[in-house]
Amino acid sequence: MKRLLITIQYDGSAYHGWQVQKNALSVQEVFQNAVEKVFGKRLDVKGCSRTDSGVHANMYCLCIDTEMSIENENVVLALNTYLPSDIAVIDCKEVDFEFHPRYSCKSKEYVYKIYNGRIRNPFLEKYALHYRFPIDEEYLNKEALAFLGTQDYSGFCSVKRDVEDTVRTVKSVSLKREGDMVYFTVEADGFLYNMVRIMVGTLLFINEGKIKEGELSDIIESKNRKRAGKTAKPQGLYLNKVNY
Amino acid sequence: MKRLLITIQYDGSAYHGWQVQKNALSVQEVFQNAVEKVFGKRLDVKGCSRTDSGVHANMYCLCIDTEMSIENENVVLALNTYLPSDIAVIDCKEVDFEFHPRYSCKSKEYVYKIYNGRIRNPFLEKYALHYRFPIDEEYLNKEALAFLGTQDYSGFCSVKRDVEDTVRTVKSVSLKREGDMVYFTVEADGFLYNMVRIMVGTLLFINEGKIKEGELSDIIESKNRKRAGKTAKPQGLYLNKVNY
Repeated sequence: MKRLLITIQYDGSAYHGWQVQKNALSVQEVFQNAVEKVFGKRLDVKGCSRTDSGVHANMYCLCIDTEMSIENENVVLALNTYLPSDIAVIDCKEVDFEFHPRYSCKSKEYVYKIYNGRIRNPFLEKYALHYRFPIDEEYLNKEALAFLGTQDYSGFCSVKRDVEDTVRTVKSVSLKREGDMVYFTVEADGFLYNMVRIMVGTLLFINEGKIKEGELSDIIESKNRKRAGKTAKPQGLYLNKVNY
Repeated sequence: MKRLLITIQYDGSAYHGWQVQKNALSVQEVFQNAVEKVFGKRLDVKGCSRTDSGVHANMYCLCIDTEMSIENENVVLALNTYLPSDIAVIDCKEVDFEFHPRYSCKSKEYVYKIYNGRIRNPFLEKYALHYRFPIDEEYLNKEALAFLGTQDYSGFCSVKRDVEDTVRTVKSVSLKREGDMVYFTVEADGFLYNMVRIMVGTLLFINEGKIKEGELSDIIESKNRKRAGKTAKPQGLYLNKVNY
């Protein structure tokens, strides 16, 4: 028996997120089908994170346990043969049994893509948020520093469960412009449900003056979801890195 | 009565090309539906070119004649309201009645996108050809010079009609690499059916040594479709510019 850590990428447009659900196609289900073809049985596939419907992954990590002795490189090739073209396996390596794709994770990085052109771009509808109002990324970069550090993010969470610890440590945060595209990148030890999308919505409120200069720290401290911005649409969000 | 020249962009993934067809959704049909909503009647929409199923357009020009006096800028806004998100109007201006989007065209430019990474990219399946073998773009740039000038391109055409003049003047041709992406750009006074896609397939044969150094001129002169390369898939092709 060995545990394999498999890294994939996926275009989430056609899927209702990672997690298996009734009556909706998920990346996990499609991946399990490919695993079944390659390994001859339906193995448990443990992912590093849930993702929402329409959210993409430049890097997503998962584990399976198998008794079969296939070379890691052949696992990559074989799985890619059975996976649809919007999911790709990019790496496979053996890890210890103590390793868990979710709990062993030290931090994750998300990127949120905003298309800041005046006229809509027909190629980006499923891959970025279209935001027409000019983004002042220098100003937002300064304001976004308030997200840094260990704070209670319960105001930046869509669905709270009573048991959940809502304190997270944000390690880095930045906005970068390339032409009409603006990329918001954030790394943290973990993320609450919709946290990145609410962070983006809040930064856009700051950009529009609906939230004032220097007010973001207060909003985080208030733990009041109503004081933060809107939840930006899922199609702009990419799980970008998983650090172990 | 006035004639409007309207410039659009579209992601062709969901369409069976530009031209209206029975039993298949086309960009032209969807555009005519939007025009009908805005102008109150089903107007004739004249396009600059046919495009194949799955082919995209960064710039596509078309004309309509109307008696209504809507400001050009409002035509853009109104049409975009009724068009699906994979088609966008980016410009509208009045032109003379002598102007025809197809026959007034001096030249067109196409770009063909090739993803030259080893592992497939799930985000590019509908937007580029995945070609794993390393592309030597410097070598191909030299070989591609044989495409330049006024030549009979009947060997680079999938369907020939007897009446058709198969002589075309290729004005510029180039391959450019950006990371794992290779862009083949070609400008000509006109293109035969599948001409760009056969040019790309032929360059890839040259890259693989299936067509020898300096042999391309002979192949063009032979007017023999069988000596050229495969027809590269439509999803990598973009109508990029229409020059009047």
